[in-house]
Amino acid sequence: MTYIEKLAAIRQQMKQNGVSAYIIPSADPHISEYLPSRYKCIRFVTGFTGSVSTVVITQDFAGLWADARYFEQAEEQLEGSGFELVKLKVQNNPEYINWLTEVLPVGSTVAFDEQLVSVVLGELLEQQLAFKQVEFKNQDYLSAIWENRPELPKNPAFLIDEQYIGQSVADKLTAVRKVMKQNHANCHLISSLDDMAWLFNMRGSDVSYNPVVLSFALITTEKATIYIDKNKLTDADLSVLADNGVEVLAYEAVGDGLTNIPSESTILIDPKRTCFGLYKLIPASVQKVLNTNPSTSLKSIKNDVEIKNTRLAMVKDGVAITQFLKWVKDNVGKIAITEISAAAQLREFRAAQDGFVGESFNTIAAYKAHGALPHYGATEQSDVTIKAEGLFLVDSGGQYRYGTTDITRVIPMGNNTEEESIDYTLVLKAMIEGCKTRFPKGTCGYQIDAITRRPMWDYALNYGHGTGHGVGYFLNVHEGPQVFNATATAVPIELGMITSIEPGIYRPGKHGIRIENLVLTVKDEVNQFIEFYAFEALTLAPIDTTLVKKELLEQAHIDWLNNYHALVYDQLSPFLSEEEKVFLAEMTVML
Amino acid sequence: MTYIEKLAAIRQQMKQNGVSAYIIPSADPHISEYLPSRYKCIRFVTGFTGSVSTVVITQDFAGLWADARYFEQAEEQLEGSGFELVKLKVQNNPEYINWLTEVLPVGSTVAFDEQLVSVVLGELLEQQLAFKQVEFKNQDYLSAIWENRPELPKNPAFLIDEQYIGQSVADKLTAVRKVMKQNHANCHLISSLDDMAWLFNMRGSDVSYNPVVLSFALITTEKATIYIDKNKLTDADLSVLADNGVEVLAYEAVGDGLTNIPSESTILIDPKRTCFGLYKLIPASVQKVLNTNPSTSLKSIKNDVEIKNTRLAMVKDGVAITQFLKWVKDNVGKIAITEISAAAQLREFRAAQDGFVGESFNTIAAYKAHGALPHYGATEQSDVTIKAEGLFLVDSGGQYRYGTTDITRVIPMGNNTEEESIDYTLVLKAMIEGCKTRFPKGTCGYQIDAITRRPMWDYALNYGHGTGHGVGYFLNVHEGPQVFNATATAVPIELGMITSIEPGIYRPGKHGIRIENLVLTVKDEVNQFIEFYAFEALTLAPIDTTLVKKELLEQAHIDWLNNYHALVYDQLSPFLSEEEKVFLAEMTVML
Repeated sequence: MTYIEKLAAIRQQMKQNGVSAYIIPSADPHISEYLPSRYKCIRFVTGFTGSVSTVVITQDFAGLWADARYFEQAEEQLEGSGFELVKLKVQNNPEYINWLTEVLPVGSTVAFDEQLVSVVLGELLEQQLAFKQVEFKNQDYLSAIWENRPELPKNPAFLIDEQYIGQSVADKLTAVRKVMKQNHANCHLISSLDDMAWLFNMRGSDVSYNPVVLSFALITTEKATIYIDKNKLTDADLSVLADNGVEVLAYEAVGDGLTNIPSESTILIDPKRTCFGLYKLIPASVQKVLNTNPSTSLKSIKNDVEIKNTRLAMVKDGVAITQFLKWVKDNVGKIAITEISAAAQLREFRAAQDGFVGESFNTIAAYKAHGALPHYGATEQSDVTIKAEGLFLVDSGGQYRYGTTDITRVIPMGNNTEEESIDYTLVLKAMIEGCKTRFPKGTCGYQIDAITRRPMWDYALNYGHGTGHGVGYFLNVHEGPQVFNATATAVPIELGMITSIEPGIYRPGKHGIRIENLVLTVKDEVNQFIEFYAFEALTLAPIDTTLVKKELLEQAHIDWLNNYHALVYDQLSPFLSEEEKVFLAEMTVML
Repeated sequence: MTYIEKLAAIRQQMKQNGVSAYIIPSADPHISEYLPSRYKCIRFVTGFTGSVSTVVITQDFAGLWADARYFEQAEEQLEGSGFELVKLKVQNNPEYINWLTEVLPVGSTVAFDEQLVSVVLGELLEQQLAFKQVEFKNQDYLSAIWENRPELPKNPAFLIDEQYIGQSVADKLTAVRKVMKQNHANCHLISSLDDMAWLFNMRGSDVSYNPVVLSFALITTEKATIYIDKNKLTDADLSVLADNGVEVLAYEAVGDGLTNIPSESTILIDPKRTCFGLYKLIPASVQKVLNTNPSTSLKSIKNDVEIKNTRLAMVKDGVAITQFLKWVKDNVGKIAITEISAAAQLREFRAAQDGFVGESFNTIAAYKAHGALPHYGATEQSDVTIKAEGLFLVDSGGQYRYGTTDITRVIPMGNNTEEESIDYTLVLKAMIEGCKTRFPKGTCGYQIDAITRRPMWDYALNYGHGTGHGVGYFLNVHEGPQVFNATATAVPIELGMITSIEPGIYRPGKHGIRIENLVLTVKDEVNQFIEFYAFEALTLAPIDTTLVKKELLEQAHIDWLNNYHALVYDQLSPFLSEEEKVFLAEMTVML
C-alpha cells in the first residue's frame, strides 16, 4: 500500500464513521518517547521517521505537525505521500488544536486511538473544542490497513540485585506509598516504563536505547501488582518479586485491574504519562488525583550506590571517548572515515568496556553543515567522508550495567575559520558558565538555563533547544522531572540529580557546535542566609582546546577548564595505554 | 472592644452557625493589594498592620499567617491579641489550607466572606478540603461587631484626555474585545481597579498610593457598562464616557448585571482578580472562561505617549532625588534628620515638581539595621536619627500626572565597613548585570531574575524578594503581568514594558542594601537567528560610588555605570541650580 492509498483508506473509514478529523500522535499506551515498532504509526502512515510529530487528517487536508528540528527531513520524507508538513512555532505545542478550532464545523466528530493520547492531551482536546460542540470517538483506523502490524515485543527482562542499585523494591514501594498518602490516594496506576523499571529494579530491551519493559503497575496501600508478559521474567525473578510482596498478572489485565477498583477509592494518576483509554476505564465512583508519578521525583535523586556506579561508568565511557578522539585524529586522511563508520567505531570502543549494554541513543555523528541539524542522524544517503578540515560534532551515549552516559564533543579537523573558533569558544564558555554556577536550594532548571545562555546572548547568539535534561541510572537518557530549559517548569534541582549541560551554536550550511557534560547536583556553601548547591562534573573526557580564544573567556572559565582537565587525566589515564596517555596529556594540557 | 473580645465575638457567631473555621484574607471585592479602610479587616480583628496576611480562627486556635517580611512586626503587634503568628515558609502560599486539612474533622463547615476571596482561592479551598467533605458558608462576622465600620470611599474621580494617555477608551475596548474573541467569550467582567483605570482612562484616589476608583465593568461584544458611584464623576466626564459608548450604572448594580447575563453566553473572567462572591452570581447556563484580564497585558505595554511622558516624570523625579541626596549630605550632623523627617523632606522635593500627585507607596527610609527589613516603614516608636556613619536606604516613588516612579538608593553616611563596601558593590554589580542584559524575544522574568542574582550567588549571597515588578503609567507601582522573580511565571517580557530591577543584600542587625532602577524593554540586535531585546534605564538619579570596589566589577559594569551617569547628568543638570549641578557632577564622576 502506498502512503496515498493508506491515506485514502483512513479517509474511507472516517467517512463511514462520520468522523471529520482523525488524530495520530506519536505515542504508545505508556506515552513513551521511544516506541516499539507496533506503535510507529506515523512512520507507517506517512513515511516520516522523526521521533516527535502529530498527524491530523480531514477530508480536505492531511498534515504532519513537526518542530524546527525536523523541517528538512519531513519535507523530504513527506514528498508524494499526500501529507503536508505544518511547521510548529513552539516545540511540543499542540498547535493543530488551534487549527481544528478554525476548520471544524460546529457539532462535528473527532476521532483518535485513546491508547495513544495522554490524559492531558485528551482533556485539552475536549476543552478546546467544547465551544464547537465536538463529539469524540475512540477509533483505531490503522490496524485494519496495517498488514503484519508488528506484535508487542517479547524480549526478556531481568531484575537487578539491590546491592547494585542501592534500594530494595520494598523500600521504593514504601516511598511511593508515602507520596500517595500526601495526595490522599490509596491507589496508584503507573504506566510510564522508566518509572516501572526504577520501582521494580527491572530492566529489559523492549524498545531501542531505553532498557525498559512494557508493563503497568497498580499500587494500593497494601498491594502492588505488575501487569507484564510473564514469559519475559525468569522464575527466579518472579519469586524475588513475590518476596517483595509484588503480584504479577498478564499485561492485558491492567484494564480489569482498573475497572475493579473499589468505589470510594482515590487513585493517583500522572496525566502526562497515562493514556486516555486506561483513564476512562476507572469507575466514576473513584476519585482521581492528577499529579506527577511519585517515582518520577524519587528516581531522579540518585542514591549513593547509583552515584558511585555512575562515576565508574563515566570512567569507562571517558576511556572509550578518548580512544575514539585519538582514532579520528590518527586516521583522518589515511583511512576512509565517514559519519556512519565513525559512529560504528565509537560503538566498538564502548563495547570493549566492561558492563556495556548498548548505546543510550542513536549517535549523532555530524560533519560540517550536518552539525547544524541538532538531531541529525546519518543515513546511507547523507553519509559523508570526514576530512582534515572543518568541525566534526559527535553526540553519543552508552548504557552500562551501572550507569547511563551522554556526551557531546566537537573535533576541530583542521583549517578552521575565525568564526568557528569564536563560536567554539562561546559554546565552551556557556557550558562552563552553567557547570561552575553555584545556586541556592530551590533553584529551578529555567534559572540554570538562563545563566548558561547569558554569555552567548552577550554576542547576540542563542540556540533553539534546551540547555539540558535529566539522565537515568542505567535507564532512559531523557528523564524527568527536572529539565534545564526556558519553559516555566517549576521543578527544583535537588541533590543527587544528574542533568546534562549542552549549549550550542548552529549555522545552517556551515557548522554546528555543541559541548555537553553530565553534572551531579552536590552540596556547596551553607551560610546564615541560605544553603547553596553546585554541580560536579560527571562526564570525563577531554574538551579540545585548539580553537579556544582565551581572550573571550574570563579567568574563572579558564580555571574551571584546567581543573576539569586535570581531573579527566587523573581519572582516565590509569586505564589507557602509554600512547593513549600521551594523547590525553596533550589534549588536557593547561590553557 | 479589645482584640480578645473581638475574637470571642467571632467565635460566638461561628458556634451559632456551626462553623469550625473562619478565614479572613487581606483583600477587598476587587482583590486589591492596597485596601480601602472598610476592608482593613485583619487590622480591625488583630491589630496587625502588615499589608499581606491571612487570619484563620477555630475554637481552639486563632492564627495569623504572614511571611518573613512581617515576622518581627507581627510578633510585636499580635502580643496579647489572642492571635498567634504562623510563619509562612513561602511568600503568598496559602499554607493554612494544609493546616486546615490536618485539624478539621470530616464533614465540618468552613466560612469566609466570599467578597474577599478570589476565584482561585475559593476553588483551591474547595478542592483541597474535598477529601474531608467540608461544607462552605459565605459569612461576614465582622460587620456585626465593627462599630462605625468605614463606608466605601466617595473621593472624586476624573478622566484623562486621550492626548495625555495615547489611546482612546473606544480603541482600548476594541483591543479588549479582540482578546475576548480569541477566548471565544462574548462577555467579560473586570473587577481589578488598575484594569478599570487603564481601560477607561480614569483615575481617582479611593485607596492610598494607587490612583484608582472603586468600580467594576461588564463588557460585551456590543456594550460596555461601568458600575461606579456616579457622584464621583463630573457631568463632563460622564458624557465623554457616553460618547465612547460606555453606560454608567451604580456600583452595587454589578451583581444584577451578572445574574442577568443571557444563558448560552460565554464570560471571560480573571480568576485571580475576581471575587468568589461575584463569580457565584453568574448563571450556571453561562460558560466561564478563566484567564488573565486582557487589559492586564495590554496595559503593561506602554504606548509612545506613555513612554515619552514617563521619561519626563523620570527627569522630575531625578531632580527631586538629587536635591534630596544633596540635602542629606549637606545637613547630616547639622540639623536633626530622622527616618521620618527625611521621608517628609523627600516628599517636599517631589511635591515641588510639576505634575506631582502623591507618593506611589509609603517611603521606606531605613537607617542602618532598619535597612535589613526589606519592607520597613518608620513609626514614631522606631524612628531614629541619621548620623554621619553607616548606610541609609531610601526606597520611594512618586505619582505624577504623566508617570509613576519607584527608586531605591543607598546613601553611605560615612565610616563604612569593608563588609558594607563589598555588599554595596555586589548589589550594584547585580543591578547592572540585570540592566545591561540582552535577551531574546520570548524571555520571561524568571530568566532575568536568575541573571541578576548570579553575581551575588558567586559570593554565596542572595535576597529573599523578587528582582523586580511591573510599574504602571500614573497607576499602581506594582503591576502585572510580568514579574522578575524566581517563580515559574510564563509571561514574556515585551517591548514597552516598564519593570524594576532591585537586587539587595540584608544583614539582620547590621544593614540593608538595595539599588533599584526602572527599565523599559527596547529593541536590540536582530540577526539571522533571533530578535534580541534590551533594557533602557528610565530612572535618572546618581548612584553613590564612594563605596564601590572596582576590583569586584568587570569592565562592562564600569562602562555601564559611567554611561548611565553621563546620561543622568545630561538629563537632570538643565533643571538644577548651579550648586546642585556641582553636586551632581561630583556624584556622577567617571569611575
